[in-house]
Amino acid sequence: MTIRYKLTIAYDGTKFHGFQKQKQLRTVEGVLEKAISRIANGEEIKVFASGRTDAGVHALAQVVHFDYPRFIPADSMMRAINTLMPLDVLVKKSEIVDENFHARFNVKKKTYMYRVDLGHYTDPFKRFYTGHYPYPLDVDKIKIAIKDLIGEHDFTSFAAAGGVIENKVRTIYSATVEYNKENNELVFEFTGNGFLYNMVRILVATLLEIGNGRRDVHDFLRLYEVKDRQEARGTAQASGLYLKEVFY
Amino acid sequence: MTIRYKLTIAYDGTKFHGFQKQKQLRTVEGVLEKAISRIANGEEIKVFASGRTDAGVHALAQVVHFDYPRFIPADSMMRAINTLMPLDVLVKKSEIVDENFHARFNVKKKTYMYRVDLGHYTDPFKRFYTGHYPYPLDVDKIKIAIKDLIGEHDFTSFAAAGGVIENKVRTIYSATVEYNKENNELVFEFTGNGFLYNMVRILVATLLEIGNGRRDVHDFLRLYEVKDRQEARGTAQASGLYLKEVFY
Repeated sequence: MTIRYKLTIAYDGTKFHGFQKQKQLRTVEGVLEKAISRIANGEEIKVFASGRTDAGVHALAQVVHFDYPRFIPADSMMRAINTLMPLDVLVKKSEIVDENFHARFNVKKKTYMYRVDLGHYTDPFKRFYTGHYPYPLDVDKIKIAIKDLIGEHDFTSFAAAGGVIENKVRTIYSATVEYNKENNELVFEFTGNGFLYNMVRILVATLLEIGNGRRDVHDFLRLYEVKDRQEARGTAQASGLYLKEVFY
Repeated sequence: MTIRYKLTIAYDGTKFHGFQKQKQLRTVEGVLEKAISRIANGEEIKVFASGRTDAGVHALAQVVHFDYPRFIPADSMMRAINTLMPLDVLVKKSEIVDENFHARFNVKKKTYMYRVDLGHYTDPFKRFYTGHYPYPLDVDKIKIAIKDLIGEHDFTSFAAAGGVIENKVRTIYSATVEYNKENNELVFEFTGNGFLYNMVRILVATLLEIGNGRRDVHDFLRLYEVKDRQEARGTAQASGLYLKEVFY
């Protein structure tokens, strides 16, 4: 009998080559499985995440699950893992869940945040934590355009090559943008039932082009129709993207 | 005839192997000289800094100078360098100075800042930007102890091995500590006429040990006398250290 653990983890993606394990490269999955396997006296433990994140992408609350061969109280498991992991990744919450819980297949909603630095130059200390857009922007246009994302749409135009999923219809429950005057940043938030590969970064790039006047304010309506990735050309930088919450 | 330029630069030290050029490694000096040499059509240009910073140490305002073979307006030089450099380093100010200016030899004072995260766990997003001290601290004791730093003292006990400087007497003009409640951090600032190798990080480690009750509150007075590096054992992490200002 094994015990299933659900972990909520945060990580600074700067020094990771993404979430997914790769030989010889430092990844979040790699350091996490290494820590858990050490606790299990070397037995290999496989971790399942709500989804991957790319190199440089951050997580405020990624969710993973794994099966462990013995009972350990959830809090002790969290402390043990945190003791063994590098400090740019942190288990924030640990729960024992029943065997029907699956970190990926049971996801109901996800929220992503995207930070855009609008400064003329990139602040070196924001380089790894924001995207950068030093061009003129009409935020009101973005606020109008972003409403066209709400609802169920075919996001074929917003799916990067490399995805393997056939059905590209997704539902966006909420999509907002706020201008933060204090640090001269735009902060986007998107909540939906699922996101295609690179979809958030492509949505942000398209919204910025609308704000810059290079696209019609209702260009999303056309892009849903044409179903052509070539039409939504840009992809915002990985460094501005944060997986903020996963809902089950 | 060459023109001497003085640059004030900021960098996030996270992805640099320190300031000083090293073969095959990414350093601040390396990317800076590469950018300037490209502007000079490949002619090798040597940069002189106010001092080195170690791997992981940050700078809000490092100062460097270099001699360039032709006149270019100071602002154009800054823009050209910033265009060619990676975004985790930024030239903030560019001035043409006379040939007697030397970024290292003319330094009158330097200010360093050190950030200490007091959280129980390290926030992953602070990992590369603070030191971490999750133990009990009496900040009032640190505030008393830090006053013993002001003035001229022999800092032999606070100089890491590897330094080559014989005279270890330095003058500290100001030394402060503030508790920042909002982010649960201690922020130290030290201004002096010079700092020995690793000296700020050793001072911070010693101050934290005093705050933790593991040293007498006036232990600095003893440490000045014994002149023994073995007595001031700790060295705070590089990640919390910022070169904040250089005065000429």
